[in-house]
Amino acid sequence: MRILKRLVLASRSPRRIALLKQIGLDFTVDPTDLPEDFDSQISPSENAMTLALQKAMNIAEKFQDAIVIGADTIVVLDNALLGKPTDESDALRMLRLLSGRTHTVVTGFALVDCASRRSMTACEETRVTFRTLPDAEISEYIAGGSPMDKAGAYGIQDDYGAVFVTRIEGCFYNVVGFPLSRFYVELNRFQSQ
Amino acid sequence: MRILKRLVLASRSPRRIALLKQIGLDFTVDPTDLPEDFDSQISPSENAMTLALQKAMNIAEKFQDAIVIGADTIVVLDNALLGKPTDESDALRMLRLLSGRTHTVVTGFALVDCASRRSMTACEETRVTFRTLPDAEISEYIAGGSPMDKAGAYGIQDDYGAVFVTRIEGCFYNVVGFPLSRFYVELNRFQSQ
Repeated sequence: MRILKRLVLASRSPRRIALLKQIGLDFTVDPTDLPEDFDSQISPSENAMTLALQKAMNIAEKFQDAIVIGADTIVVLDNALLGKPTDESDALRMLRLLSGRTHTVVTGFALVDCASRRSMTACEETRVTFRTLPDAEISEYIAGGSPMDKAGAYGIQDDYGAVFVTRIEGCFYNVVGFPLSRFYVELNRFQSQ
Repeated sequence: MRILKRLVLASRSPRRIALLKQIGLDFTVDPTDLPEDFDSQISPSENAMTLALQKAMNIAEKFQDAIVIGADTIVVLDNALLGKPTDESDALRMLRLLSGRTHTVVTGFALVDCASRRSMTACEETRVTFRTLPDAEISEYIAGGSPMDKAGAYGIQDDYGAVFVTRIEGCFYNVVGFPLSRFYVELNRFQSQ
Protein backbone atom coordinates (compact mmCIF):
# COMPACT_ATOMS: atom_id res chain seq x y z
CA MET A 1 0.00 0.00 0.00
CA ARG A 2 1.38 3.41 -0.92
CA ILE A 3 0.92 5.88 1.94
CA LEU A 4 0.27 9.38 0.60
CA LYS A 5 0.37 11.45 3.81
CA ARG A 6 2.02 11.34 7.19
CA LEU A 7 0.16 8.97 9.55
CA VAL A 8 -0.40 9.77 13.23
CA LEU A 9 -1.68 7.18 15.72
CA ALA A 10 -3.71 8.76 18.54
CA SER A 11 -3.12 5.85 20.92
CA ARG A 12 -0.34 4.76 23.28
CA SER A 13 -1.41 1.10 23.26
CA PRO A 14 1.73 -0.99 22.70
CA ARG A 15 -0.45 -3.63 20.99
CA ARG A 16 -1.80 -1.14 18.44
CA ILE A 17 1.68 0.23 17.76
CA ALA A 18 3.04 -3.29 17.21
CA LEU A 19 0.13 -4.26 14.95
CA LEU A 20 0.48 -1.24 12.68
CA LYS A 21 4.22 -1.87 12.45
CA GLN A 22 3.50 -5.52 11.61
CA ILE A 23 1.80 -4.46 8.35
CA GLY A 24 4.75 -2.21 7.49
CA LEU A 25 3.23 1.20 8.28
CA ASP A 26 5.39 4.13 9.27
CA PHE A 27 3.67 6.52 11.69
CA THR A 28 4.03 8.95 14.57
CA VAL A 29 2.51 8.13 17.98
CA ASP A 30 0.66 11.03 19.61
CA PRO A 31 -1.73 9.72 22.28
CA THR A 32 -4.70 11.58 23.77
CA ASP A 33 -5.81 11.56 27.36
CA LEU A 34 -9.53 11.79 26.71
CA PRO A 35 -11.63 10.03 29.35
CA GLU A 36 -13.09 6.77 28.01
CA ASP A 37 -16.67 7.34 29.11
CA PHE A 38 -19.39 5.05 27.82
CA ASP A 39 -22.83 6.40 26.90
CA SER A 40 -25.42 3.82 27.95
CA GLN A 41 -27.96 5.31 25.50
CA ILE A 42 -26.03 4.08 22.45
CA SER A 43 -24.74 0.65 21.37
CA PRO A 44 -21.23 -0.65 22.13
CA SER A 45 -20.18 -0.23 18.49
CA GLU A 46 -21.44 3.37 18.44
CA ASN A 47 -19.59 4.01 21.70
CA ALA A 48 -16.37 2.57 20.27
CA MET A 49 -16.64 4.55 17.01
CA THR A 50 -17.56 7.78 18.80
CA LEU A 51 -14.60 7.49 21.18
CA ALA A 52 -12.26 6.59 18.31
CA LEU A 53 -13.40 9.66 16.35
CA GLN A 54 -13.07 11.95 19.39
CA LYS A 55 -9.51 10.77 19.95
CA ALA A 56 -8.57 11.25 16.29
CA MET A 57 -10.25 14.70 16.08
CA ASN A 58 -8.50 15.78 19.26
CA ILE A 59 -5.05 15.01 17.83
CA ALA A 60 -5.92 16.21 14.31
CA GLU A 61 -5.97 19.80 15.62
CA LYS A 62 -2.22 19.59 16.16
CA PHE A 63 -1.28 18.74 12.55
CA GLN A 64 -1.55 20.67 9.28
CA ASP A 65 -1.34 17.80 6.83
CA ALA A 66 -1.60 14.26 8.13
CA ILE A 67 -4.07 11.43 8.57
CA VAL A 68 -4.82 10.70 12.23
CA ILE A 69 -5.89 7.22 13.36
CA GLY A 70 -8.06 6.84 16.46
CA ALA A 71 -9.27 3.58 18.00
CA ASP A 72 -11.19 2.26 20.95
CA THR A 73 -11.75 -1.33 22.09
CA ILE A 74 -14.60 -2.47 24.33
CA VAL A 75 -15.41 -5.93 25.66
CA VAL A 76 -19.12 -6.75 25.85
CA LEU A 77 -20.62 -9.62 27.86
CA ASP A 78 -24.42 -9.85 27.77
CA ASN A 79 -25.25 -6.16 28.16
CA ALA A 80 -22.30 -5.21 30.35
CA LEU A 81 -19.37 -3.25 28.93
CA LEU A 82 -15.98 -4.26 30.36
CA GLY A 83 -13.25 -1.64 30.14
CA LYS A 84 -9.82 -1.82 31.75
CA PRO A 85 -9.91 -3.26 35.29
CA THR A 86 -9.55 -0.69 38.07
CA ASP A 87 -7.50 -3.02 40.28
CA GLU A 88 -6.62 -6.69 40.72
CA SER A 89 -9.92 -7.62 42.34
CA ASP A 90 -11.74 -5.99 39.40
CA ALA A 91 -9.60 -8.07 37.02
CA LEU A 92 -10.54 -11.22 38.99
CA ARG A 93 -14.23 -10.26 38.75
CA MET A 94 -13.98 -9.72 34.98
CA LEU A 95 -12.11 -12.95 34.24
CA ARG A 96 -14.58 -14.96 36.34
CA LEU A 97 -17.40 -13.38 34.32
CA LEU A 98 -15.72 -14.31 31.03
CA SER A 99 -14.89 -17.90 32.13
CA GLY A 100 -16.80 -20.56 30.17
CA ARG A 101 -18.70 -17.94 28.16
CA THR A 102 -18.66 -16.20 24.78
CA HIS A 103 -18.22 -12.42 24.70
CA THR A 104 -17.80 -9.83 21.97
CA VAL A 105 -14.79 -7.58 21.38
CA VAL A 106 -15.72 -4.35 19.64
CA THR A 107 -13.06 -2.09 18.15
CA GLY A 108 -14.07 1.18 16.57
CA PHE A 109 -11.53 3.11 14.55
CA ALA A 110 -11.54 6.51 12.89
CA LEU A 111 -9.48 8.30 10.25
CA VAL A 112 -9.30 12.10 10.12
CA ASP A 113 -7.63 14.06 7.32
CA CYS A 114 -6.19 17.12 9.07
CA ALA A 115 -6.14 19.39 6.01
CA SER A 116 -9.71 18.82 4.81
CA ARG A 117 -11.24 17.68 8.16
CA ARG A 118 -12.74 14.76 6.28
CA SER A 119 -13.28 11.72 8.51
CA MET A 120 -14.55 8.15 8.50
CA THR A 121 -15.33 5.59 11.19
CA ALA A 122 -15.77 1.84 11.08
CA CYS A 123 -16.21 -0.94 13.57
CA GLU A 124 -15.30 -4.60 13.78
CA GLU A 125 -16.82 -7.16 16.14
CA THR A 126 -15.28 -10.52 17.05
CA ARG A 127 -16.88 -13.25 19.18
CA VAL A 128 -14.48 -14.86 21.67
CA THR A 129 -15.12 -18.07 23.64
CA PHE A 130 -13.25 -18.85 26.87
CA ARG A 131 -12.99 -22.32 28.37
CA THR A 132 -13.95 -22.65 32.03
CA LEU A 133 -11.02 -21.21 33.95
CA PRO A 134 -9.84 -22.54 37.32
CA ASP A 135 -9.39 -19.69 39.84
CA ALA A 136 -5.73 -20.73 40.19
CA GLU A 137 -5.03 -19.93 36.52
CA ILE A 138 -6.82 -16.58 36.79
CA SER A 139 -4.83 -15.65 39.90
CA GLU A 140 -1.49 -16.61 38.35
CA TYR A 141 -2.33 -14.50 35.29
CA ILE A 142 -3.28 -11.46 37.40
CA ALA A 143 -0.16 -11.87 39.54
CA GLY A 144 1.90 -11.47 36.34
CA GLY A 145 0.39 -8.01 35.89
CA SER A 146 -0.60 -8.34 32.25
CA PRO A 147 -4.40 -7.94 32.61
CA MET A 148 -4.28 -4.48 34.17
CA ASP A 149 -4.08 -2.27 31.06
CA LYS A 150 -6.42 -4.32 28.88
CA ALA A 151 -10.16 -4.08 28.21
CA GLY A 152 -11.79 -7.18 29.72
CA ALA A 153 -8.62 -7.88 31.75
CA TYR A 154 -6.97 -10.20 29.19
CA GLY A 155 -4.78 -10.18 26.11
CA ILE A 156 -5.36 -12.99 23.61
CA GLN A 157 -1.67 -12.66 22.67
CA ASP A 158 -0.51 -13.24 26.29
CA ASP A 159 0.82 -16.51 27.72
CA TYR A 160 -2.34 -17.23 29.72
CA GLY A 161 -4.66 -15.35 27.34
CA ALA A 162 -3.67 -17.64 24.47
CA VAL A 163 -4.74 -20.75 26.37
CA PHE A 164 -7.93 -19.20 27.83
CA VAL A 165 -9.51 -18.78 24.38
CA THR A 166 -10.87 -21.89 22.66
CA ARG A 167 -12.34 -20.22 19.56
CA ILE A 168 -13.04 -16.89 17.94
CA GLU A 169 -15.38 -15.80 15.16
CA GLY A 170 -14.19 -12.77 13.21
CA CYS A 171 -10.90 -10.88 13.03
CA PHE A 172 -8.18 -12.07 15.45
CA TYR A 173 -6.23 -8.80 15.39
CA ASN A 174 -9.40 -6.99 16.43
CA VAL A 175 -9.18 -8.90 19.73
CA VAL A 176 -5.55 -7.83 20.15
CA GLY A 177 -6.74 -4.23 19.70
CA PHE A 178 -6.86 -3.28 16.02
CA PRO A 179 -8.65 -4.92 13.04
CA LEU A 180 -5.74 -4.93 10.58
CA SER A 181 -7.45 -6.34 7.51
CA ARG A 182 -10.47 -4.02 7.72
CA PHE A 183 -8.23 -1.04 8.50
CA TYR A 184 -5.99 -1.76 5.49
CA VAL A 185 -8.98 -1.75 3.14
CA GLU A 186 -10.52 1.38 4.70
CA LEU A 187 -7.24 3.33 4.72
CA ASN A 188 -6.75 2.52 1.02
CA ARG A 189 -10.26 3.74 0.29
CA PHE A 190 -9.92 6.88 2.45
CA GLN A 191 -6.67 7.84 0.71
CA SER A 192 -8.12 7.43 -2.77
CA GLN A 193 -11.23 9.55 -2.11
CA MET B 1 0.79 -25.80 34.39
CA ARG B 2 3.35 -27.99 36.11
CA ILE B 3 5.42 -29.95 33.57
CA LEU B 4 6.35 -33.36 34.95
CA LYS B 5 8.72 -34.64 32.27
CA ARG B 6 11.15 -33.27 29.75
CA LEU B 7 9.32 -32.05 26.62
CA VAL B 8 10.70 -32.59 23.10
CA LEU B 9 9.23 -30.86 20.04
CA ALA B 10 9.60 -32.98 16.88
CA SER B 11 9.33 -29.94 14.57
CA ARG B 12 11.70 -27.28 13.29
CA SER B 13 8.90 -24.79 12.49
CA PRO B 14 9.92 -21.40 13.94
CA ARG B 15 6.19 -20.60 14.42
CA ARG B 16 5.60 -23.70 16.55
CA ILE B 17 8.72 -23.03 18.61
CA ALA B 18 7.62 -19.41 19.24
CA LEU B 19 4.05 -20.45 20.13
CA LEU B 20 5.15 -23.03 22.69
CA LYS B 21 7.55 -20.49 24.20
CA GLN B 22 4.69 -17.95 24.31
CA ILE B 23 2.80 -20.14 26.80
CA GLY B 24 5.92 -20.51 28.93
CA LEU B 25 6.93 -24.07 28.05
CA ASP B 26 10.52 -25.22 28.26
CA PHE B 27 11.41 -27.86 25.66
CA THR B 28 14.08 -29.37 23.41
CA VAL B 29 13.74 -29.11 19.62
CA ASP B 30 14.52 -32.34 17.75
CA PRO B 31 12.98 -32.24 14.27
CA THR B 32 12.29 -35.23 12.04
CA ASP B 33 12.77 -35.41 8.31
CA LEU B 34 9.88 -37.71 7.56
CA PRO B 35 8.29 -37.08 4.14
CA GLU B 36 4.92 -35.32 4.48
CA ASP B 37 2.94 -37.61 2.20
CA PHE B 38 -0.83 -37.33 2.13
CA ASP B 39 -3.01 -40.42 1.87
CA SER B 40 -5.98 -39.56 -0.35
CA GLN B 41 -7.98 -42.46 1.13
CA ILE B 42 -8.33 -40.75 4.53
CA SER B 43 -9.61 -37.33 5.63
CA PRO B 44 -7.40 -34.25 6.05
CA SER B 45 -7.72 -34.44 9.85
CA GLU B 46 -6.73 -38.14 9.85
CA ASN B 47 -3.79 -37.27 7.58
CA ALA B 48 -2.67 -34.49 9.93
CA MET B 49 -3.00 -36.65 13.06
CA THR B 50 -1.27 -39.64 11.44
CA LEU B 51 1.67 -37.52 10.29
CA ALA B 52 1.89 -35.82 13.71
CA LEU B 53 1.99 -39.21 15.43
CA GLN B 54 4.58 -40.60 13.00
CA LYS B 55 6.84 -37.61 13.67
CA ALA B 56 6.47 -37.92 17.45
CA MET B 57 7.00 -41.72 17.41
CA ASN B 58 10.08 -41.30 15.25
CA ILE B 59 11.73 -38.95 17.74
CA ALA B 60 10.44 -40.82 20.82
CA GLU B 61 12.84 -43.69 20.00
CA LYS B 62 15.74 -41.40 20.86
CA PHE B 63 14.67 -40.61 24.44
CA GLN B 64 14.32 -42.72 27.56
CA ASP B 65 12.02 -40.51 29.58
CA ALA B 66 10.36 -37.55 27.88
CA ILE B 67 7.10 -36.51 26.24
CA VAL B 68 7.50 -35.89 22.51
CA ILE B 69 5.21 -33.45 20.68
CA GLY B 70 4.50 -33.97 16.97
CA ALA B 71 2.38 -31.72 14.76
CA ASP B 72 1.29 -31.36 11.16
CA THR B 73 -0.65 -28.54 9.51
CA ILE B 74 -2.61 -28.89 6.25
CA VAL B 75 -4.61 -26.27 4.34
CA VAL B 76 -7.79 -27.60 2.70
CA LEU B 77 -9.73 -25.81 -0.04
CA ASP B 78 -12.75 -27.69 -1.38
CA ASN B 79 -11.21 -31.17 -1.63
CA ALA B 80 -7.67 -30.07 -2.44
CA LEU B 81 -4.92 -30.29 0.16
CA LEU B 82 -2.40 -27.45 -0.03
CA GLY B 83 1.00 -28.17 1.48
CA LYS B 84 4.08 -25.98 1.25
CA PRO B 85 4.55 -24.42 -2.22
CA THR B 86 7.23 -26.03 -4.39
CA ASP B 87 8.31 -22.72 -5.93
CA GLU B 88 7.14 -19.13 -6.42
CA SER B 89 4.73 -19.97 -9.23
CA ASP B 90 3.18 -22.64 -7.01
CA ALA B 91 2.78 -20.03 -4.24
CA LEU B 92 1.08 -17.72 -6.78
CA ARG B 93 -1.26 -20.53 -7.81
CA MET B 94 -2.17 -21.29 -4.16
CA LEU B 95 -2.79 -17.67 -3.16
CA ARG B 96 -4.97 -17.11 -6.26
CA LEU B 97 -6.97 -20.20 -5.25
CA LEU B 98 -7.43 -18.88 -1.68
CA SER B 99 -8.36 -15.32 -2.80
CA GLY B 100 -11.97 -14.38 -2.01
CA ARG B 101 -12.70 -17.83 -0.54
CA THR B 102 -12.97 -19.64 2.78
CA HIS B 103 -10.61 -22.54 3.44
CA THR B 104 -9.89 -24.77 6.43
CA VAL B 105 -6.62 -25.07 8.32
CA VAL B 106 -6.19 -28.47 9.96
CA THR B 107 -3.51 -29.06 12.57
CA GLY B 108 -3.06 -32.50 14.03
CA PHE B 109 -0.84 -32.98 17.05
CA ALA B 110 0.39 -35.99 18.95
CA LEU B 111 1.96 -36.67 22.34
CA VAL B 112 4.12 -39.73 22.97
CA ASP B 113 5.43 -40.77 26.39
CA CYS B 114 8.81 -42.33 25.67
CA ALA B 115 8.96 -44.53 28.76
CA SER B 116 5.53 -46.14 28.48
CA ARG B 117 4.99 -45.63 24.70
CA ARG B 118 1.56 -44.26 25.56
CA SER B 119 0.33 -41.78 22.93
CA MET B 120 -2.61 -39.50 22.08
CA THR B 121 -3.59 -37.49 19.01
CA ALA B 122 -6.00 -34.61 18.54
CA CYS B 123 -6.93 -32.27 15.77
CA GLU B 124 -8.17 -28.70 15.49
CA GLU B 125 -9.85 -27.13 12.45
CA THR B 126 -10.19 -23.39 11.80
CA ARG B 127 -12.09 -21.77 8.94
CA VAL B 128 -10.24 -18.83 7.34
CA THR B 129 -11.73 -16.29 4.92
CA PHE B 130 -9.57 -14.24 2.53
CA ARG B 131 -10.72 -11.05 0.86
CA THR B 132 -10.27 -10.88 -2.92
CA LEU B 133 -6.57 -10.25 -3.44
CA PRO B 134 -5.16 -8.12 -6.27
CA ASP B 135 -2.34 -9.95 -8.11
CA ALA B 136 -0.02 -7.05 -7.20
CA GLU B 137 -0.42 -7.75 -3.46
CA ILE B 138 0.16 -11.50 -3.99
CA SER B 139 3.32 -10.82 -6.03
CA GLU B 140 4.75 -8.38 -3.46
CA TYR B 141 4.12 -10.95 -0.72
CA ILE B 142 5.84 -13.75 -2.66
CA ALA B 143 8.77 -11.45 -3.54
CA GLY B 144 9.37 -11.02 0.21
CA GLY B 145 9.93 -14.79 0.47
CA SER B 146 7.67 -15.46 3.43
CA PRO B 147 5.15 -17.82 1.74
CA MET B 148 7.70 -20.45 0.71
CA ASP B 149 7.93 -22.53 3.92
CA LYS B 150 4.24 -22.36 4.86
CA ALA B 151 1.30 -24.67 4.11
CA GLY B 152 -1.07 -22.81 1.77
CA ALA B 153 1.69 -20.27 1.00
CA TYR B 154 0.73 -17.74 3.70
CA GLY B 155 1.26 -16.92 7.36
CA ILE B 156 -1.64 -15.19 9.14
CA GLN B 157 1.00 -13.57 11.39
CA ASP B 158 2.87 -12.02 8.41
CA ASP B 159 2.61 -8.43 7.18
CA TYR B 160 0.58 -9.33 4.10
CA GLY B 161 -1.02 -12.41 5.64
CA ALA B 162 -2.58 -10.30 8.41
CA VAL B 163 -4.38 -8.08 5.90
CA PHE B 164 -5.41 -10.94 3.56
CA VAL B 165 -7.64 -12.54 6.22
CA THR B 166 -10.99 -10.89 6.96
CA ARG B 167 -12.31 -13.45 9.45
CA ILE B 168 -11.63 -16.77 11.07
CA GLU B 169 -13.83 -19.27 12.90
CA GLY B 170 -11.98 -21.36 15.47
CA CYS B 171 -8.56 -21.16 17.07
CA PHE B 172 -6.25 -18.43 15.71
CA TYR B 173 -3.03 -20.09 16.86
CA ASN B 174 -4.06 -23.19 14.95
CA VAL B 175 -3.72 -21.11 11.76
CA VAL B 176 -0.24 -19.97 12.84
CA GLY B 177 0.64 -23.66 13.22
CA PHE B 178 -0.27 -24.94 16.66
CA PRO B 179 -3.61 -24.90 18.58
CA LEU B 180 -2.32 -23.58 21.92
CA SER B 181 -5.51 -23.70 23.97
CA ARG B 182 -6.45 -27.24 22.92
CA PHE B 183 -2.84 -28.40 23.37
CA TYR B 184 -2.67 -26.94 26.88
CA VAL B 185 -5.77 -28.85 27.95
CA GLU B 186 -4.64 -32.10 26.29
CA LEU B 187 -1.11 -31.94 27.70
CA ASN B 188 -2.53 -31.42 31.21
CA ARG B 189 -4.79 -34.45 30.73
CA PHE B 190 -2.00 -36.61 29.22
CA GLN B 191 0.32 -35.85 32.14
CA SER B 192 -2.29 -36.71 34.75
CA GLN B 193 -3.25 -40.07 33.25
